Amino acid sequence: MSIITLTTDFGLKDHFVGALKGKIITEHPQAQIIDISHDVDLFNISEASYTINAAYGSFPKGSVHLIGVDSERTTENKHIAMQWNDHFFICADNGILSILTQKIVPQKIVEINIHDRLPEGASDMDVFVKVACHLSKGGAMSVIGKEITAIKEINELQAVVASDNNSIKGSVVYIDHFGNCVTNISRKLIQETGKGRPFEVKFGTKTIKSIHKSYSDFKISERFTLKDYEGERLALFNEAGFLEIAIYKSNPSTVGSATSLLGLKFRDTVTIQYK
Amino acid sequence: MSIITLTTDFGLKDHFVGALKGKIITEHPQAQIIDISHDVDLFNISEASYTINAAYGSFPKGSVHLIGVDSERTTENKHIAMQWNDHFFICADNGILSILTQKIVPQKIVEINIHDRLPEGASDMDVFVKVACHLSKGGAMSVIGKEITAIKEINELQAVVASDNNSIKGSVVYIDHFGNCVTNISRKLIQETGKGRPFEVKFGTKTIKSIHKSYSDFKISERFTLKDYEGERLALFNEAGFLEIAIYKSNPSTVGSATSLLGLKFRDTVTIQYK
Amino acid sequence: MSIITLTTDFGLKDHFVGALKGKIITEHPQAQIIDISHDVDLFNISEASYTINAAYGSFPKGSVHLIGVDSERTTENKHIAMQWNDHFFICADNGILSILTQKIVPQKIVEINIHDRLPEGASDMDVFVKVACHLSKGGAMSVIGKEITAIKEINELQAVVASDNNSIKGSVVYIDHFGNCVTNISRKLIQETGKGRPFEVKFGTKTIKSIHKSYSDFKISERFTLKDYEGERLALFNEAGFLEIAIYKSNPSTVGSATSLLGLKFRDTVTIQYK
Repeated sequence: MSIITLTTDFGLKDHFVGALKGKIITEHPQAQIIDISHDVDLFNISEASYTINAAYGSFPKGSVHLIGVDSERTTENKHIAMQWNDHFFICADNGILSILTQKIVPQKIVEINIHDRLPEGASDMDVFVKVACHLSKGGAMSVIGKEITAIKEINELQAVVASDNNSIKGSVVYIDHFGNCVTNISRKLIQETGKGRPFEVKFGTKTIKSIHKSYSDFKISERFTLKDYEGERLALFNEAGFLEIAIYKSNPSTVGSATSLLGLKFRDTVTIQYK
Repeated sequence: MSIITLTTDFGLKDHFVGALKGKIITEHPQAQIIDISHDVDLFNISEASYTINAAYGSFPKGSVHLIGVDSERTTENKHIAMQWNDHFFICADNGILSILTQKIVPQKIVEINIHDRLPEGASDMDVFVKVACHLSKGGAMSVIGKEITAIKEINELQAVVASDNNSIKGSVVYIDHFGNCVTNISRKLIQETGKGRPFEVKFGTKTIKSIHKSYSDFKISERFTLKDYEGERLALFNEAGFLEIAIYKSNPSTVGSATSLLGLKFRDTVTIQYK
Repeated sequence: MSIITLTTDFGLKDHFVGALKGKIITEHPQAQIIDISHDVDLFNISEASYTINAAYGSFPKGSVHLIGVDSERTTENKHIAMQWNDHFFICADNGILSILTQKIVPQKIVEINIHDRLPEGASDMDVFVKVACHLSKGGAMSVIGKEITAIKEINELQAVVASDNNSIKGSVVYIDHFGNCVTNISRKLIQETGKGRPFEVKFGTKTIKSIHKSYSDFKISERFTLKDYEGERLALFNEAGFLEIAIYKSNPSTVGSATSLLGLKFRDTVTIQYK
């Protein structure tokens, strides 16, 4: 298997994504290309970071993840390739990968140095395509770059435990297609900090007192069916293990969603309060 | 061939669709995944139903159609797999498939029962992926579910023939990308009811007196070219055999479309009046 | 390799694109289908033309490019297939391909004549699918059409050199996902006309005095980092060799873009003024 995933802010209207795929398939006809997203908010490192972190785990080991967000090579942002948890990531060194390296130490990082070997006028994507196809074919990282030991870190995405251990302060890091608000507070952090203590989820003037096992985890009775709970707010852990504030059966374009109905926006604070 | 099609309301911005594909390809590397739509209106059973009914016929027999719309498993909505017309469909039992079973009797339906065999925390999509890959590899339905004989029906999508057989009352069931209004009135129903009688198409205060063979089926002469007919309303049967009200060369974001210019909206009534 | 690319105005919400792919894969299971764009502005020949011209070069020789924009067959618009620069193009003869034939003489053009051989009710896309699969399998063009020597030309997309050779008048032909304004003025035309003379780029009341090598090609010093240049206007040649007016780190939905901040819209004039 030669899987190359794509995460970009190129949008789907322009020819950019099609051309990128054409270049990959020209260089490596056996590559299996899978789109993760091409609608990352433009130049938004945090969102790209969230997306790749949420998605990579669904792909087999050995997959190559090409990230085309803020990918222009500058004196500040080198091009890098990283082997991490048996996956490969290719992007500019702008902080996107620090969400991964803060969890697990990378196996190897290189600063890509093949630029001089490409034809004049080669674009940033031409470089990424060359590297992605090389790695996808099983080529060595040392052939396409010089080993480095550290990458740029962005730290804004961390939830913080209070010094008295009685609360955790996090924030909304992503609003999804359903208008659900994903936070940076993990189930693991809540459990390790709380050691079994009960807790409430607080944001703005609102409180949610329990965690749902699923979106539809409401008490059904002869008096109340699931339909009666549509529009109710809830909190649950999403598949990646992060706390999410949601509205049951939300629809941003009709009945509203967690972000619109609860006024909870990107970067807003969400607090875990232990009792 | 191992074709797995995807129809969801996940949107294309989030990582959900990419992750779904990653899981499929991990489980079944030879699968050929084809997107039907990921922009079904959220939790909209009718729209999902319309979409899958309009699309399945373009795929080869044996294709597996995974439908991720309102797919959470609840006590009301079991997970089901259905073999029908030599195609396989996987979804929650929320009525999506009744548009198919009203036309042709299913070959086999099972209530999926593999949930206990999956790791704890497995999502609804994890279940669907397992089932889709199993069926796509030619596995037996009995291995992944218990046979059932009926599924949930939704009947709202039916056109009704008047008791005197002089008219048919239908409704708009889908507005497409061009702003064209697709109804639930089939060519077959019009022909069987009319037995050769001429008819008019009526909606609101408007009447269309003939059926176009194609969008551009206008009378061209020395005085009038096709360009002169741009903006004209028309009715025709779409590829699936349903009556559609359209505007020639419509564009919802510039000159307008059938839905905007004729004021014809989702669920509005369209009548066939025989003469 | 059997690559078939798709460029349409069908949008991604409806089942149209999925059905098109289903038909291709039914006819030619080994085909590798790659989307270029499905969000071409409806019936917009110029935009389709721009898109296919910008994209084809990223695909290997022998690729088949199916273009479903304004593709209905009428007495005015025949269906055609063209071999050009070792690529194949299939579309209605509505002018889309003249952007290519103005650069290089086609190898062969045929008017598709297989319509009578298809089942009754076959759609325009059914025809294109048959032709695309036939060509993709290496079939001869003479089997699916009758040779013709000329196609419809649209000339609106040409930049014009002033009679005194001191200026070039072009226009904005495409606004991309970043809000950048792509013109029809090529690097080649500027160089051939200027013969080394310096020049300025003018539009509205604004002037840009130099050409960037890349978006981030700003002078960095101890006083100014790249961050200080965000929001600056610039001009550069895009990958296809055309002059583009851009804003550094633009975002149409937040901080604005070249089209919104500079008031430069589709079809607006951009002038090259030699000194």
